[in-house]
Amino acid sequence: MEVSSVYVQGDGSEHDRPAQPRAFLTGEDRKSDHLRVGPYVDFPVSVVLPAGGSGERTGLQTPKQFCPFLGRPLISYTIESFERVSWIQTIMVVVAKENIGLMKDIIQQFQHNKVRVVPGGSTRHRSICNGVVALGEEGRPAADKPKVVIVHDAVRPFVDEDFLYKIAVAAKEQGAAGAIRPLVSTVIATTSEGYLDHSLERAKYRASEMPQGFTYDVIYQAYQKCTESDFEFGTECLHLALQYCGTNAKLIDGPPTLWKVTYKRDLAAAESIIKETLSQSACLITGGLEAGVTLGKFLQKAFGSLDMELNVTPNLMGDNVRYLLKDWNFIQVSVSPSCLSEVEAILTALQAENRALLNPAVIIWMYLSGTDEPSTSGRPAESAALISLASTAKLRNILLYGIRLHQPEDTEQWERSASRVADIASALIRDRNPALVGQLLQA
Amino acid sequence: MEVSSVYVQGDGSEHDRPAQPRAFLTGEDRKSDHLRVGPYVDFPVSVVLPAGGSGERTGLQTPKQFCPFLGRPLISYTIESFERVSWIQTIMVVVAKENIGLMKDIIQQFQHNKVRVVPGGSTRHRSICNGVVALGEEGRPAADKPKVVIVHDAVRPFVDEDFLYKIAVAAKEQGAAGAIRPLVSTVIATTSEGYLDHSLERAKYRASEMPQGFTYDVIYQAYQKCTESDFEFGTECLHLALQYCGTNAKLIDGPPTLWKVTYKRDLAAAESIIKETLSQSACLITGGLEAGVTLGKFLQKAFGSLDMELNVTPNLMGDNVRYLLKDWNFIQVSVSPSCLSEVEAILTALQAENRALLNPAVIIWMYLSGTDEPSTSGRPAESAALISLASTAKLRNILLYGIRLHQPEDTEQWERSASRVADIASALIRDRNPALVGQLLQA
Repeated sequence: MEVSSVYVQGDGSEHDRPAQPRAFLTGEDRKSDHLRVGPYVDFPVSVVLPAGGSGERTGLQTPKQFCPFLGRPLISYTIESFERVSWIQTIMVVVAKENIGLMKDIIQQFQHNKVRVVPGGSTRHRSICNGVVALGEEGRPAADKPKVVIVHDAVRPFVDEDFLYKIAVAAKEQGAAGAIRPLVSTVIATTSEGYLDHSLERAKYRASEMPQGFTYDVIYQAYQKCTESDFEFGTECLHLALQYCGTNAKLIDGPPTLWKVTYKRDLAAAESIIKETLSQSACLITGGLEAGVTLGKFLQKAFGSLDMELNVTPNLMGDNVRYLLKDWNFIQVSVSPSCLSEVEAILTALQAENRALLNPAVIIWMYLSGTDEPSTSGRPAESAALISLASTAKLRNILLYGIRLHQPEDTEQWERSASRVADIASALIRDRNPALVGQLLQA
Repeated sequence: MEVSSVYVQGDGSEHDRPAQPRAFLTGEDRKSDHLRVGPYVDFPVSVVLPAGGSGERTGLQTPKQFCPFLGRPLISYTIESFERVSWIQTIMVVVAKENIGLMKDIIQQFQHNKVRVVPGGSTRHRSICNGVVALGEEGRPAADKPKVVIVHDAVRPFVDEDFLYKIAVAAKEQGAAGAIRPLVSTVIATTSEGYLDHSLERAKYRASEMPQGFTYDVIYQAYQKCTESDFEFGTECLHLALQYCGTNAKLIDGPPTLWKVTYKRDLAAAESIIKETLSQSACLITGGLEAGVTLGKFLQKAFGSLDMELNVTPNLMGDNVRYLLKDWNFIQVSVSPSCLSEVEAILTALQAENRALLNPAVIIWMYLSGTDEPSTSGRPAESAALISLASTAKLRNILLYGIRLHQPEDTEQWERSASRVADIASALIRDRNPALVGQLLQA
């Protein structure tokens, strides 16, 4: 590895990025808990994202790259993975002509700002080639032409910055680089009559996955030189680089999260990964109430035993605003049955930060009823107000639920109550079910 | 295919099975909506299910075959897939010595009645070999030795009867047969330095999957003749059959559901498949109430637009008991706020049928409040009774929830209300979340 090609950041501050490369690093970079500081690539890198597939294998009508989960299409998660990476310039998405309008709507709705869209060709290689050519035509002056092009799949949403870094650096050094994974199944050769001919020795072979990286010149030349038959029947860019440019790609072991969403079940798997990521911690806002502090103490333990972290804070002001920028889940303690103003304040703050643009946030109104009220009584007014506020919040991608707990009187009661609250709250947070917003549940 | 080896049932009645084969077809065959009538195999078939894996790739502490979802370990779903098939005799599960106790507990808890357990060896081939030998020693008289042995993985829970039939018949005819799938990724050969050597032409190769079938003699001989090195490093039974018995296996395209649960995300995918299977229909019991019939009419339409079927019945008696044996989800209409006796009757009936042994059933108490009550009022008594009954039901694997709807007054109100009820009820049914049982939700 050329050390000179790498800039390693020193102080861990996300605002202290190098001034170059240019235009794509602006103050508009999204605030996100995902923004992180890693090794830095100082040569121009862009991405081609072929997204022309018809998704036949999912058994769904919508091509799988456009299938939504948690209210957002799969391809937007993939784009997000690349937009997070500060040293990536342009993401060239290649879609079938009939989906260009849909793709542009997605870009606008989720405010993707590094994406350009070009129409695809009739095969995978023709589509990637269109993307590569469009990247070359993009920059004026010529210096903007990417040094390295990363080719990925729209349906592999979980590529991380560290791995992209490895691919980009290896591609610059070797001309080409690609992700590999161990084979899950034995690969066998069949006779023309459908019988076993022989099986391959698993240890000698690997599955070729995405992302792959190429210097612009290698991938461009490969597509200039390859045949119509390659364009029509081929699928493997590494193969073209080898055959037409004599470039033996460097192969790098990738993480299992690089897998390709192929079948309907894979959409469920992808959704479960996103939900898990969003549900690792929650923030309890005590409002400075004594009962809130007590609840926080017991809840932290109960959440811990459910593998969820609970941050406890009196409010979201001053220094505590960090929870607003970091957590996806908020539990607001209240002892007033008719007052949702604290919840409204969180809604306003989340909206000001545009926090729920990409993923649904959860707010739980945690009402501690007084010792003089019967524990399971309902009040029409509070229930109706919660339902109404939840409807409004849902339009902003914020899921609001309520939990009512009759204030416990001793330690033993507190422990049992906290355990019930944690069960219900963690279920609401992990499921993120939009059909249940506005409900006031009993703990 | 030898037609003489196949018995095709004529009249569609599940009680009208052929009297042979013998012991494994008894009156104890589980009542199940999965029991179906298909082609029948008239030679003895048994199964070896190696389940010794450590599950490293899921990143979980528990080996993945023992990971639970919906309250049941993965391996029990796989066993269920084989127990459903009337012509399968013994399922020989091979587990590591330290897990034999756990495995026996699973068999007892879920009343698996075709399973035997044998200790595994130190590698996959040694474990399968133990299972094959144990099957040969099992039967007295010798006629009980299986003609065909099916080898499967404990972590492929969704094998269906039609495909097992194809494998069993082909194995009997050819000596060996195996499932194949198209390759998802290109397979490449690497140099010792980690560079691309060449890529394989995808069309010529297939992934070898499970199940595989062998005549007893072929698999037994293959293990008698193979080397220590095969036992130590090999994984592919088809390869041993070819090398040591000269048997070229017949390869049969399998469905995508045969995939192997390998990573943690695959557990989520498997869970989503089970949940979807359990959520295809629900049964609304009107109790003969006029309001219930009206609700049923509007709900059927609302459920339909959510891709869920709704059966409407006045009760579960007489002929209508078929819903009890078929549906996994019940919605009991009530207009009395303090009476849960109808729900208790369903609980009793489900328990009498042992319906929730393998999968959690859902009951929703649908309370239509009168026009004289405020729509969002709560009553301590009904709420407490529901919570208490739900706790009891949960112990029997039955998930009880409540939905309260203020009785609409005109068609337009009914349509909107039915749509809200359908949203909430379908969410409860699809999620099957045990943390929310006993809650009375507002529609």
